[in-house]
Amino acid sequence: MPEKIFVFDTTLRDGEQSAGVAFTPQEKLEIARQLEKLGVDVIEAGFPCSTPGDLDAVKTIAREVRGATICALARAVQTDVDTAWEAVREAADPRIHVFINSSDIQMAHQLHKDREQVLTQAEAMVRHAAKYTSNVEFSPMDATRSDPRFIFSIVERCIEAGATTINIPDSVGYAIPEELGALFRAIFENVPNIHKARVSFHGQNDLGLCTANTLTAIQNGARQVEVTVNGIGERAGNTSLEEVVMAIKTRKDFFGFETGINTREIYRASKLVEAYSGMPIQWNKAIVGKNAFRHGSGIHQDGILKLRETWEIMDPTEIGIPQGTQLVLGKLSGRHAFKVHMQELGYELTEEELSRVFGAFKELADKKVEVDDRDLEAIVNANLHGVEDAAWRLDMVQVSAGDHATPTATLRLVDPEGNIRTDAATGDGPVDAVYRAMNRITGLTPDLTEFSVKSVTEGIDAQGDVTIRIEEDGRVFTGRASDTDIIVASAKAYMNALNRMIAVTGRRGGVGANP
Amino acid sequence: MPEKIFVFDTTLRDGEQSAGVAFTPQEKLEIARQLEKLGVDVIEAGFPCSTPGDLDAVKTIAREVRGATICALARAVQTDVDTAWEAVREAADPRIHVFINSSDIQMAHQLHKDREQVLTQAEAMVRHAAKYTSNVEFSPMDATRSDPRFIFSIVERCIEAGATTINIPDSVGYAIPEELGALFRAIFENVPNIHKARVSFHGQNDLGLCTANTLTAIQNGARQVEVTVNGIGERAGNTSLEEVVMAIKTRKDFFGFETGINTREIYRASKLVEAYSGMPIQWNKAIVGKNAFRHGSGIHQDGILKLRETWEIMDPTEIGIPQGTQLVLGKLSGRHAFKVHMQELGYELTEEELSRVFGAFKELADKKVEVDDRDLEAIVNANLHGVEDAAWRLDMVQVSAGDHATPTATLRLVDPEGNIRTDAATGDGPVDAVYRAMNRITGLTPDLTEFSVKSVTEGIDAQGDVTIRIEEDGRVFTGRASDTDIIVASAKAYMNALNRMIAVTGRRGGVGANP
Repeated sequence: MPEKIFVFDTTLRDGEQSAGVAFTPQEKLEIARQLEKLGVDVIEAGFPCSTPGDLDAVKTIAREVRGATICALARAVQTDVDTAWEAVREAADPRIHVFINSSDIQMAHQLHKDREQVLTQAEAMVRHAAKYTSNVEFSPMDATRSDPRFIFSIVERCIEAGATTINIPDSVGYAIPEELGALFRAIFENVPNIHKARVSFHGQNDLGLCTANTLTAIQNGARQVEVTVNGIGERAGNTSLEEVVMAIKTRKDFFGFETGINTREIYRASKLVEAYSGMPIQWNKAIVGKNAFRHGSGIHQDGILKLRETWEIMDPTEIGIPQGTQLVLGKLSGRHAFKVHMQELGYELTEEELSRVFGAFKELADKKVEVDDRDLEAIVNANLHGVEDAAWRLDMVQVSAGDHATPTATLRLVDPEGNIRTDAATGDGPVDAVYRAMNRITGLTPDLTEFSVKSVTEGIDAQGDVTIRIEEDGRVFTGRASDTDIIVASAKAYMNALNRMIAVTGRRGGVGANP
Repeated sequence: MPEKIFVFDTTLRDGEQSAGVAFTPQEKLEIARQLEKLGVDVIEAGFPCSTPGDLDAVKTIAREVRGATICALARAVQTDVDTAWEAVREAADPRIHVFINSSDIQMAHQLHKDREQVLTQAEAMVRHAAKYTSNVEFSPMDATRSDPRFIFSIVERCIEAGATTINIPDSVGYAIPEELGALFRAIFENVPNIHKARVSFHGQNDLGLCTANTLTAIQNGARQVEVTVNGIGERAGNTSLEEVVMAIKTRKDFFGFETGINTREIYRASKLVEAYSGMPIQWNKAIVGKNAFRHGSGIHQDGILKLRETWEIMDPTEIGIPQGTQLVLGKLSGRHAFKVHMQELGYELTEEELSRVFGAFKELADKKVEVDDRDLEAIVNANLHGVEDAAWRLDMVQVSAGDHATPTATLRLVDPEGNIRTDAATGDGPVDAVYRAMNRITGLTPDLTEFSVKSVTEGIDAQGDVTIRIEEDGRVFTGRASDTDIIVASAKAYMNALNRMIAVTGRRGGVGANP
């Protein structure tokens, strides 16, 4: 039976310290519930002394979330410790987490205290916290830039005072794995009572090393890891829960440990935190990024189609990613991936047809980032049937809007048969009015699931680039268009998406249209 | 003199393999020029055999960018090698990079070849490439999942055949630093002619470990690192240039190496690649993320104000980040950061005034993610002067637009003295017309530097959330507003930003306005 690594999640505390992030109490509770589902061992729910709102939020979580230890952060100051206890006392398993600066640079320039004063204060406050609960964690802040001998003393004294978890934070993201491993070994060698506490590591990602540092800490005796979902947190963030958990799982052969995490809840947790933090996950983020299981290269796509394991070390479904592995058609895609994709679209092409269409696809792919299904339809039609696919065309769009007027759009479309159709509609705003008018004319009513306008950074006159995504019967179609007039761009993008939908589904539109 | 680590940038090759990314030839050239400025040693400009467009793009870079080695990728196939040479032959210092699968799983399931066949093919193609140039790199693909004994043989044979750089790729992002270090040591011990080549490492970030793996490779003999700007690349991406370079620089005390990179060009390179790849950098990305040098916690802000080094191990100006260190006012900010910020806004408050205003700020901060300067102005006015700041007010906005009409906006504003002022203007689009009309009425003409509409994901009826940023005399002011009508939201956001500008600069507007 592999030894267990305890997962301490601080998304709600250090994660919320990210500049630009503040969760509402309701969001905090929802995230805490998802963390419980995920199976984390400890939830650091907040820093109750920082604001009254945070105190209330931690209290609520302590009452409502019973499946994990609920922890509150406190400076080594009596009011902080008292407030932390007030926040977590009703938890099924409450923990107080006391911290104090321990590097010479921070003690001298931030605290204005010497080592002896810091030692005494830390010890006293751990002792104070231990009066409330036997579950006390202590962190010597900036430990990796501290004099190791001072760390040995402060850790020993705080364990004696009642700390049952000792966390070693790399608070400014300075540590290199090799060096950190040595520090952990030294702590186990030089702190006589260290076996009375569980040892923990908290990393920051300033140099991009905190996943590696966390794994090194585990290899050198740490049994708790402090992490956040998506790696959010102060500056470059904390260690990503998903990276550490999946590294331990994927490389069990190497590490020989396990966590209590239900990895199939990772993706959901990631999306929830992304939405509530407002911090977008980059495409190339390990494990949870949009591209983590998407393959662009022809060689990789070919390999994946032959045997997934040739190019993937994890199965995306294990992380709860609904769409699984994805092959994206683009300039680097090979004939094999192309053929499989065309079959999925319903085209059974002969080898000769495939060659012709694949050639045209490669030419287009050289010009266009992602060749989508609509482009493929057009290629097939142009190369095999010799005609461009008939589609609706936007002939005119005109809107009036304002805060004292009812937004109104008038559209003139040309239908696939060449008839001119004109109609108007009102809406909540001019874009909405355009969509309603277009639905009215075409008789189509897909759900609009996304509407975005790309940042225009070159001043007022630059182009607005609109992307919209519509959905019908579970299939998604995207439309994109640019125009200096954002309303015109929106109308073009929607027309575009509707035409793709018509081309793929075979629906022609026209029901309910006024000729 | 510290030993040099050679930087091999593959943003244009592996970076472009990111699903959803394709650079235009012009973008590739611009990125290559920035890489040259950055001081990278080798630019892998593309995979010329993949598409005719890529061949041309590599050719152009080879001709135009003379300050770095220009490298082209080739499978161990004669046509690939010939095409690669055609692409780079005009470079100041051309390199051909030959690769072949070397793990049993990939040889068996993707190549359908046995070890002996792969060995022979690799050797023959390196020999073929070496006829064109003495600068030949060889990569046994998926090296970290290969039988090390096979790696020793294939590396030895390829060096004999003329390879001068041997790259060991962790193609599926499977390696753990400790294990990778052992592999590098084993290669140096078991390949008799290894000293004739420069050894390189190429990491993938599937488990979030590639920066650490790259540094470990260096510690164990690698002298070339393969990286991309922002870590873009297939799946979870490649090793980030900025992370490896800044780790080597920041921890020179530990590593004792240096690179030829001009770190002050990192930020510009990062922004360029972000724009052209369309892959947004997450806020918590190390080194180049928006939050990498932004501090949200009160304790950190307090420390930074006392001495920057208490909480920052790198100076953001060394990376070329124009705004430097930033303290973001929010719920976790302390009195110290608040006071300094108010002074920057021009408020010299007494301790008693500060206490009153700080209390109101903390209350607001509990409700609002980021408290901005306009909020602070309002707090000061409400708490110290007892009146809301006099400002322009938007009374009515009305637009008409379309692709057959001239976009026109009519606005009615109330000036700070209570007078109603109405005027109209035309523009490139309805938003532009609104801005022009507002400028005309207020007499203010700041530069609009950013306009964005946040994705609306809940369907047509959801609110459009507009953010605009304006600049005058080097000071930036932000306005935000929501409305179901995107035009109304834009007008409110712009009014908002103008009022902030007036409040801070003391300009009242009104010049040229029609009462």
